[in-house]
Amino acid sequence: MNPAAKKSSGERAAGRRVGVWLVGARGSIATCVAYGLAGLRANLIEPVGLVTATEPFTELPLVPLENLVLAGHDVCNRPLTQSAGELVRHHILDPELVTASAAAATAFEARIRPGILDAADVGVADLQPEASRLGALPPREQIERLRADFAAFARDAELERVIVVDIASTEAHRETRGEWRSLAAFEAALDAKVAQPASVIYAYAALGAGHPFVNFTPSTGASIPALRELAQARGVPHCGNDGKTGETLVKTVLAPLFVARRLRVLAWQGYNMLGNRDGEVLNDPLHRESKLRSKNDALRQLLGDPLVHTKVGIDYVPSLRDWKTAWDFIHFEGFLGAQMSLQFTWQGSDSALAAPLVIDLVRLADFAADNGESGEMPHTASFFKSPLSGGTHDFHEQFASLIEYAEKHAGN
Amino acid sequence: MNPAAKKSSGERAAGRRVGVWLVGARGSIATCVAYGLAGLRANLIEPVGLVTATEPFTELPLVPLENLVLAGHDVCNRPLTQSAGELVRHHILDPELVTASAAAATAFEARIRPGILDAADVGVADLQPEASRLGALPPREQIERLRADFAAFARDAELERVIVVDIASTEAHRETRGEWRSLAAFEAALDAKVAQPASVIYAYAALGAGHPFVNFTPSTGASIPALRELAQARGVPHCGNDGKTGETLVKTVLAPLFVARRLRVLAWQGYNMLGNRDGEVLNDPLHRESKLRSKNDALRQLLGDPLVHTKVGIDYVPSLRDWKTAWDFIHFEGFLGAQMSLQFTWQGSDSALAAPLVIDLVRLADFAADNGESGEMPHTASFFKSPLSGGTHDFHEQFASLIEYAEKHAGN
Amino acid sequence: MNPAAKKSSGERAAGRRVGVWLVGARGSIATCVAYGLAGLRANLIEPVGLVTATEPFTELPLVPLENLVLAGHDVCNRPLTQSAGELVRHHILDPELVTASAAAATAFEARIRPGILDAADVGVADLQPEASRLGALPPREQIERLRADFAAFARDAELERVIVVDIASTEAHRETRGEWRSLAAFEAALDAKVAQPASVIYAYAALGAGHPFVNFTPSTGASIPALRELAQARGVPHCGNDGKTGETLVKTVLAPLFVARRLRVLAWQGYNMLGNRDGEVLNDPLHRESKLRSKNDALRQLLGDPLVHTKVGIDYVPSLRDWKTAWDFIHFEGFLGAQMSLQFTWQGSDSALAAPLVIDLVRLADFAADNGESGEMPHTASFFKSPLSGGTHDFHEQFASLIEYAEKHAGN
Amino acid sequence: MNPAAKKSSGERAAGRRVGVWLVGARGSIATCVAYGLAGLRANLIEPVGLVTATEPFTELPLVPLENLVLAGHDVCNRPLTQSAGELVRHHILDPELVTASAAAATAFEARIRPGILDAADVGVADLQPEASRLGALPPREQIERLRADFAAFARDAELERVIVVDIASTEAHRETRGEWRSLAAFEAALDAKVAQPASVIYAYAALGAGHPFVNFTPSTGASIPALRELAQARGVPHCGNDGKTGETLVKTVLAPLFVARRLRVLAWQGYNMLGNRDGEVLNDPLHRESKLRSKNDALRQLLGDPLVHTKVGIDYVPSLRDWKTAWDFIHFEGFLGAQMSLQFTWQGSDSALAAPLVIDLVRLADFAADNGESGEMPHTASFFKSPLSGGTHDFHEQFASLIEYAEKHAGN
Repeated sequence: MNPAAKKSSGERAAGRRVGVWLVGARGSIATCVAYGLAGLRANLIEPVGLVTATEPFTELPLVPLENLVLAGHDVCNRPLTQSAGELVRHHILDPELVTASAAAATAFEARIRPGILDAADVGVADLQPEASRLGALPPREQIERLRADFAAFARDAELERVIVVDIASTEAHRETRGEWRSLAAFEAALDAKVAQPASVIYAYAALGAGHPFVNFTPSTGASIPALRELAQARGVPHCGNDGKTGETLVKTVLAPLFVARRLRVLAWQGYNMLGNRDGEVLNDPLHRESKLRSKNDALRQLLGDPLVHTKVGIDYVPSLRDWKTAWDFIHFEGFLGAQMSLQFTWQGSDSALAAPLVIDLVRLADFAADNGESGEMPHTASFFKSPLSGGTHDFHEQFASLIEYAEKHAGN
Repeated sequence: MNPAAKKSSGERAAGRRVGVWLVGARGSIATCVAYGLAGLRANLIEPVGLVTATEPFTELPLVPLENLVLAGHDVCNRPLTQSAGELVRHHILDPELVTASAAAATAFEARIRPGILDAADVGVADLQPEASRLGALPPREQIERLRADFAAFARDAELERVIVVDIASTEAHRETRGEWRSLAAFEAALDAKVAQPASVIYAYAALGAGHPFVNFTPSTGASIPALRELAQARGVPHCGNDGKTGETLVKTVLAPLFVARRLRVLAWQGYNMLGNRDGEVLNDPLHRESKLRSKNDALRQLLGDPLVHTKVGIDYVPSLRDWKTAWDFIHFEGFLGAQMSLQFTWQGSDSALAAPLVIDLVRLADFAADNGESGEMPHTASFFKSPLSGGTHDFHEQFASLIEYAEKHAGN
Repeated sequence: MNPAAKKSSGERAAGRRVGVWLVGARGSIATCVAYGLAGLRANLIEPVGLVTATEPFTELPLVPLENLVLAGHDVCNRPLTQSAGELVRHHILDPELVTASAAAATAFEARIRPGILDAADVGVADLQPEASRLGALPPREQIERLRADFAAFARDAELERVIVVDIASTEAHRETRGEWRSLAAFEAALDAKVAQPASVIYAYAALGAGHPFVNFTPSTGASIPALRELAQARGVPHCGNDGKTGETLVKTVLAPLFVARRLRVLAWQGYNMLGNRDGEVLNDPLHRESKLRSKNDALRQLLGDPLVHTKVGIDYVPSLRDWKTAWDFIHFEGFLGAQMSLQFTWQGSDSALAAPLVIDLVRLADFAADNGESGEMPHTASFFKSPLSGGTHDFHEQFASLIEYAEKHAGN
Repeated sequence: MNPAAKKSSGERAAGRRVGVWLVGARGSIATCVAYGLAGLRANLIEPVGLVTATEPFTELPLVPLENLVLAGHDVCNRPLTQSAGELVRHHILDPELVTASAAAATAFEARIRPGILDAADVGVADLQPEASRLGALPPREQIERLRADFAAFARDAELERVIVVDIASTEAHRETRGEWRSLAAFEAALDAKVAQPASVIYAYAALGAGHPFVNFTPSTGASIPALRELAQARGVPHCGNDGKTGETLVKTVLAPLFVARRLRVLAWQGYNMLGNRDGEVLNDPLHRESKLRSKNDALRQLLGDPLVHTKVGIDYVPSLRDWKTAWDFIHFEGFLGAQMSLQFTWQGSDSALAAPLVIDLVRLADFAADNGESGEMPHTASFFKSPLSGGTHDFHEQFASLIEYAEKHAGN
């Protein structure tokens, strides 16, 4: 890229408005994204936790934060101010920020539409009845409805692009299906009105209409071969699955240490506790299954030993709210057979950890689309527990490839 | 390197005998090295914790473990069997290994000579009176004596090379001296009979006589400009300082995570407890000073913030013996100003962690010498708390450069 | 008690030989009891962890340790030396103690007979075929066989009394049965050949033949109304259930603190890991159920809040062997709604913690029998997770009642 | 006490107004006391953490919370609203409670007078110049001034009694002085204008004028023989020293467990971190000395072993603010020499833990005075790290004596 081109693309970036369509728009992460963006624009908070706010990413013509416009779907009708109030009480959002950002929050809320209830989610609190009705429609009608929402958003808000981001609660685990193996088989199943998980419908609706898709959840989304094929065919970038925010993040930093030093991991036990709506949903064994697979795979792959004794547990502890607390115990053997241990306790707000990564991924997905990339965005592997592509779970290796990508595109 | 050359260098490696001169030969690390090597040769233990025992290092013509011959200096006269007995009682050495390796231990002990007592170390238990006498000699005489020991070892054991490794207890901290700035000034100070720290004398004696030198301690050793100049002038490789075995190792893996994710570290408190002779020595404030500097620098450099609130403490807790126990508390800020924490407890045997690294470094130093390298061996940075060269304290970056080095030399 | 009587009872205590019949005689606890008693007699170890070795218990005419004679049942035929070897390798038994106590161990092993396999335990390793055969007999025949073993032991070893102690692995959980409600109903069920859990058969066999019974396991044992009635009718003392050795011990010390200070416990999560045979057995959900009930009840009762959010988990982590490692996280609320936490990690050898308590309970049961007491020995509540009697789970209250008992009987 | 008398004393309690004179009235604890009392009166918060709010204390004619009137001294002039704002930002005070309690806070602040600056405290931020002037006056004049403040408060607020409570930051440690040995010597020193620590002046001023005195700090206060004599002579109750709120509280609950079970403590290391003004003051070695003595004594006495290896450290970690975080590591030996450990991490708000205890102590001191008691109030030992009287540091024993006191006075 020559300097002139760079300048013009930078200028173009600065002028464009990009839409962020949040699936799960009334949840804690969405609330942190909305108030956080408002706070960043008003200089009320600093961009702590935002990877793209620093070098070398500042050298890229990423869409400026003030040009991001929020909208989204949700299956419940809990007011955003109620979500914000809970986050204030749980010491995640500052009350002054909430007051100062009231106008931005109102504007966002006005653009939230009823989402599609996943068939397995019957007992949701504050359920939006329309979400239930949409959830029962044949898949082609669901898709049409979602695309109409995306299009109306793009038109009304005068957007150059809309990025769809799934930050809804984890869906119930589904076994792999035959129709997921190819796009043709999947299209046929849609024609035959075979119901699909909501996350898959969202991914199909987004990718098929040319919207980049970010799956921050462990739900299926665009991870199936059929949708990967669709993204390639349509030339759309997408990434996922399952944001790597806390305990797994620490795991994927520590596990390579044991491998590098040839210390033999005998057992790695991880116990997670959380009390937010995500935790409540994970309290159900079917939903938990999706999450645990995602968390355990990384460790086994990193240690290079499929038989190593590992365990990942998640418990719902309501009083902790959004403050995920995790304890990991690593039992290992060193030279001479000496047995040693490392244990750690992680205490962090899941939503405040996730929100800046969502913003980072939106900016990177927009840049990738602008740059003509399609498919799984392998450079984003460090953001995910189960990266769609990227080869390793080693955080430092993943992050090095992100930096390399940024430097390559910033360069020349 | 062409395949033929490689093969012949591999064969040469296999035939050569390399001497390992351990300064601190009666201590816990030396005892673990001696019994560990004997156990590895007899297939009684596996090479757990030994970095050079796996790929890509197995592709290099490193000296085989069975060709390493041990000897060394010590200032005390505690029998090696007593050190071994203590390690058995503290569950680090297996009693069966000790019994099976009695002959090897006896042969090693027969090659231990009285070392030079550092002037600041007056109260050592089991002091070898000769060490005290040597400690009071003018420096040139000390050096002559050490070199005579090295030479006799090489001759008697028919060695192709002798590597000198400092694994003695931490020396008292010394302020930087003018005579350390250049080799010429240092030589003049030696001529003027200006007493020097024992670790510096050892380094000078080794490097000046062409012996590669490994400083596994936080003592000054070869880190001063004068001795770096000497190593370059004589074409000898050397590396140090201060083996990165436990809490600092974990720190240099975790700190880059906070930087990568732009999470702001507010405070990093580290509390170390240990009860071996090393811990006893560190109970003295002057000796502790050397160690703490080494431990704290890495963190500040990694976090890129010289003002970040950090603390590293070391306490002598006799009952823990060699089982270093450390607790670190990391207080950090994420998006929206949310304050979070990570804490970890490390429980490991310092000597069992150090011993395989000492063996690794001996093999790498021998390879470097064979390969015609001189100076600070920057590829060994991952082994040290204060690498003489290597630029970063980030373990994963350091380790990547070690792998790159090995692959480069294994390759073609 | 007047001084003369006391003296004579002390003398009598000194002369008498008391038999200790261990159910689970080849397990880790039994092995620690056997080698520990031998070591205490030979002055090779100190009575650390032995409550009755100090004041005020030393004022009671308790049976001297050297007068205890060991025998027992087991369903497996693993040699005691193998159990001892494992405990040496796992750093619980000292190899020198094992060597020095060989004769005592051999004498004990010669008195171990095949036990009764519980119907639910089909997959035990090293199973003694005779145990399987005994497990299938009608209950009256099982009881007869056990009593014959007790009687032969008393006769051959010239014992004044035999105490039966259950330290076998946890039995599968059983729902309460109608026939357990009264002794008459139970006797009728035995007559009708209704199979009973092995622990109940042992308790019935012991109590009915006048042998004091100690149930150190969470298995049913003598806790059912029918057997409590039997103990009262026969005038025999007994106690149980489930030795309070580790995590629960700490819980019952800490929970009263929160109550005393009116701090509101919001959640108490306890995660246990262990890797011995007991852990392997608990890996089975049915067996785990017995244990978890026992562990959770104490907490709820102490906090006085049946709705408080608590969890107790047990995971089998083979590499930990006998070294139980537990992490508890206590989330609580203080004044002004401020939320706080206390977390602890417990790392202890389950068998080395249990063994001295078994010895204590044998001495106390013998003393109680000598003293003409019958029934549940309420003063022993501090030893158990589910005391048969004693009213509170508060360790300090329980212990105060033990001290009061000792002082009362030591007194005048 | 017969029911009639009890009723009338209850009624009398209900009618009386009692003054609470807080030394350190602008600090965090005072702020929590002020807003907490306002919140309790308005039913905005529950009496969590308040020992006297539950049985059996509710059976005593304690002064009702709504009859307590606050006033106090401080050496700085930081507005109370600033202290409250900090506590809101640090998630200890609820912003709604602060708003709702504005009138109460204003009334309290109007009754805060300049205190006496201790001679060793020269660098206090926001120093009230008058406090500095008062600190330099001869002791008799200081005392006169303080008593005039107490008297004006009692008169203006129509109080039946004034309780003086020291909750100021820890004073610099002072060596014991000859003049402290008896009241006569102390009076002579005052006459001779020998300057005294501020805490001693406060205690003398209060006790000599008949005001009960509560020393919640580790400062000297009324602990010296001279002032104990004065309290007896004047018939005034007083108690102290150093509120037992966090890590020491847990210590005095756990240490008796090791003693009861005859487990041998090998080392007990305690590391405390805090970042409030108290922490800042303790960052000075002289001030820290007072605190550490108080914290370490309890442990040594409880373990009954003056030689046991213990350490208590306190570090100032500004980012933690009022959230004391402490890690304790307990290394202990069990049966057979097996070495085990227990570690705990305590995370609590020091001020929110202290405030309810201050209210409890005020009510108990008022009751004691009403009841004609004089001297050290031994039943309050459970509230203090260094109880002036009470014999043991065992929390459960101390608490049992408090309950016994309450039941005795509630009873008949």
